[in-house]
Amino acid sequence: MNPQKDRLWWERDDLCYKDGQLFFSGSSMADLIGLTGTPAFFYSGRRISQNIERLHNALSQLDAHKIYYAIKANRFAPILTSIKSGRKCGVDVCSPGELLHAFSCGFERSEISYTANSMTNDELRLLANNPDVALNCDSLSTIRRLGQFCSGRKIGIRVNPALGIGYRDNETLRYSGEKTTKFGIYRDQFEEALRLASENNFIVDTIHFHTGCGYLSNQLSIFNGILDETHWFVDQVKDLACINLGGGLGVPHDRDDAPLDLDAWVSIIKSHFGNKGVTICVEPGDYIAKDSGLLVLEVNTVERKQETDFIGVNGGFNLAIEPTFYGLPCEPVVLKQKTSKMKPVTVVGNINESLDVWKDNFQMPDQIQEGDPLVFINAGGYASSMMSNHCMRGQVSENFLF
Amino acid sequence: MNPQKDRLWWERDDLCYKDGQLFFSGSSMADLIGLTGTPAFFYSGRRISQNIERLHNALSQLDAHKIYYAIKANRFAPILTSIKSGRKCGVDVCSPGELLHAFSCGFERSEISYTANSMTNDELRLLANNPDVALNCDSLSTIRRLGQFCSGRKIGIRVNPALGIGYRDNETLRYSGEKTTKFGIYRDQFEEALRLASENNFIVDTIHFHTGCGYLSNQLSIFNGILDETHWFVDQVKDLACINLGGGLGVPHDRDDAPLDLDAWVSIIKSHFGNKGVTICVEPGDYIAKDSGLLVLEVNTVERKQETDFIGVNGGFNLAIEPTFYGLPCEPVVLKQKTSKMKPVTVVGNINESLDVWKDNFQMPDQIQEGDPLVFINAGGYASSMMSNHCMRGQVSENFLF
Repeated sequence: MNPQKDRLWWERDDLCYKDGQLFFSGSSMADLIGLTGTPAFFYSGRRISQNIERLHNALSQLDAHKIYYAIKANRFAPILTSIKSGRKCGVDVCSPGELLHAFSCGFERSEISYTANSMTNDELRLLANNPDVALNCDSLSTIRRLGQFCSGRKIGIRVNPALGIGYRDNETLRYSGEKTTKFGIYRDQFEEALRLASENNFIVDTIHFHTGCGYLSNQLSIFNGILDETHWFVDQVKDLACINLGGGLGVPHDRDDAPLDLDAWVSIIKSHFGNKGVTICVEPGDYIAKDSGLLVLEVNTVERKQETDFIGVNGGFNLAIEPTFYGLPCEPVVLKQKTSKMKPVTVVGNINESLDVWKDNFQMPDQIQEGDPLVFINAGGYASSMMSNHCMRGQVSENFLF
Repeated sequence: MNPQKDRLWWERDDLCYKDGQLFFSGSSMADLIGLTGTPAFFYSGRRISQNIERLHNALSQLDAHKIYYAIKANRFAPILTSIKSGRKCGVDVCSPGELLHAFSCGFERSEISYTANSMTNDELRLLANNPDVALNCDSLSTIRRLGQFCSGRKIGIRVNPALGIGYRDNETLRYSGEKTTKFGIYRDQFEEALRLASENNFIVDTIHFHTGCGYLSNQLSIFNGILDETHWFVDQVKDLACINLGGGLGVPHDRDDAPLDLDAWVSIIKSHFGNKGVTICVEPGDYIAKDSGLLVLEVNTVERKQETDFIGVNGGFNLAIEPTFYGLPCEPVVLKQKTSKMKPVTVVGNINESLDVWKDNFQMPDQIQEGDPLVFINAGGYASSMMSNHCMRGQVSENFLF
């Protein structure tokens, strides 16, 4: 008997049942919750390192690469400092607050990329004063106004290849496509962008694009099509040193998702840019952080209403917004494996809104009781970083596990 | 010439242009922004009082009424203390945090209703210790577990009439309807709820229901239908002292919306419950707070991309989530009235997500420039109370105007 075969789709060596008890990063979850209570986020530093290592190894098939972790996914300071100490990964930031936070966690300017939009003059002044931060300009206005505060700086230009990509082709996760978006410079203004850069003695050393979030292997043909579109831009830049592919690398969110095939992904990159003599940069967020995090809540209400079995927990969409607003589930799992049969339940939070549903009509063991903890997987990215104190239900601890 | 006729749909005496300059609550907006900078919320205490007064006057056609302002809409302490000092309105809270916050702003227990879901035992213990807070129980589990901590307490029962209502029949704003929701006790369990209450010597003195958000005059026939459904519950409660209609009273969000006709609304209430000898309670949030608030941002980017004219501002959906996630617009207006012609623009924020669009394809004066402030109306409800620090772009001041 192969024990792997009996595992649930999300189980892996550092997150699995042992003798029926859920273990995470070497600890029993029951033991961890005994210390922190709920609601609580737990992040595995080891899993984050593994995710970075896997990506780093795949990218090592290229001549040169650089990974910038997009801290907007999760900026919890221990995570950042742990990433810094691993020395394989810089950070991507998108606001002055994030830039200062990255500094505060130990990153040097040269390890930071800055990719923002609708930038203020104050923001541009800050970037002018920190020329070693890799800045990607996503509009003509940015380049023009940056010229008021500095000259001679290296800059990247974020371009928009007018093709989008996203988890299960989810429209809300596409940053580019048929509809014109605020992101990046389109073909019809690229010449003007290069001219404005030249006028201000900026050296364009990077072409950047980011076209969506959460793509997996079955979207790689779209990814290939996007790279096709970018050559037009890349080929016009004489001082090109870097091509930044943005982020968007996804992780499985349910049993039907296969993990992203990194070798296939790198092959596509290599086939397009392998001979350009440039550094390939990526800005993953979820790929590094999402499956490293769990959110633990406690069941307080088990009740059948009409034909629906509800399970109510002590946290809602204000702690993790993606299930409600983006259709990206954080699947709930039990702390102790039950031998009982399964039944469909609807897991709901404690926010006074009809949208506050963690999982609708979802198969779970039928012995879940009031007082049981529930563990929500894939809560490491875009959960705590987007959380609010709506209904003043925002109290949650964050915990880093080595 | 009637000057009213030249007003834009959202202008009113305390929010209008005078000699082309936007005034709010007696002050020039330009002057206010000079002090605070941007991003900044401004709330008019006078407008809040007017909204309460209007509601209070309409409800005075009934024998007895009580207004509980739902602080989840906006819990900014100066707003709460100002409401308390007006003495016409209590507060509705939905969590221990909100209960303590209401205390801290000056409300007494007897002025507070508590309407929550997925309540923890700690939460129920707090309510057991504060019997003068009007508690609405929305599940059998709540009544059963409350019985572990107290007996003899008055309670309300939140029922679910299985009919929903919401702004423009928006599904995300309905709390009740064809699909079974987590909210309230349905008919098939009401007898059990009364039995559980009786077993614990609780006195059921209130029937509560809340079925959606943002209804206006053209949804009043649905409102009438909802009240039809509630008689079945109301008629079974022998110690009934209050009927709590919940909140959901809406405000106009664009030029096509007519304000809610309060007289028509009260007539419906009176026709159903006028002869019951009970106090009619309501829990409005948006109706009191939403049009009292403005969010001021600054344009930093004016740029045409392909066929779209973008206006980028220094704040995004993390400061006001409703336009993006609920389809409830905060319409942007200019500080200085322009005589120039109008053109369609897309107003976007500074968050790195494709959803970060304030207003898509919207007619605005064609002279808007980088550096101009933009004022977003209807930002008084469910904006700051749901705001996050996503992308670390959550810095905003809140300002109360007398």
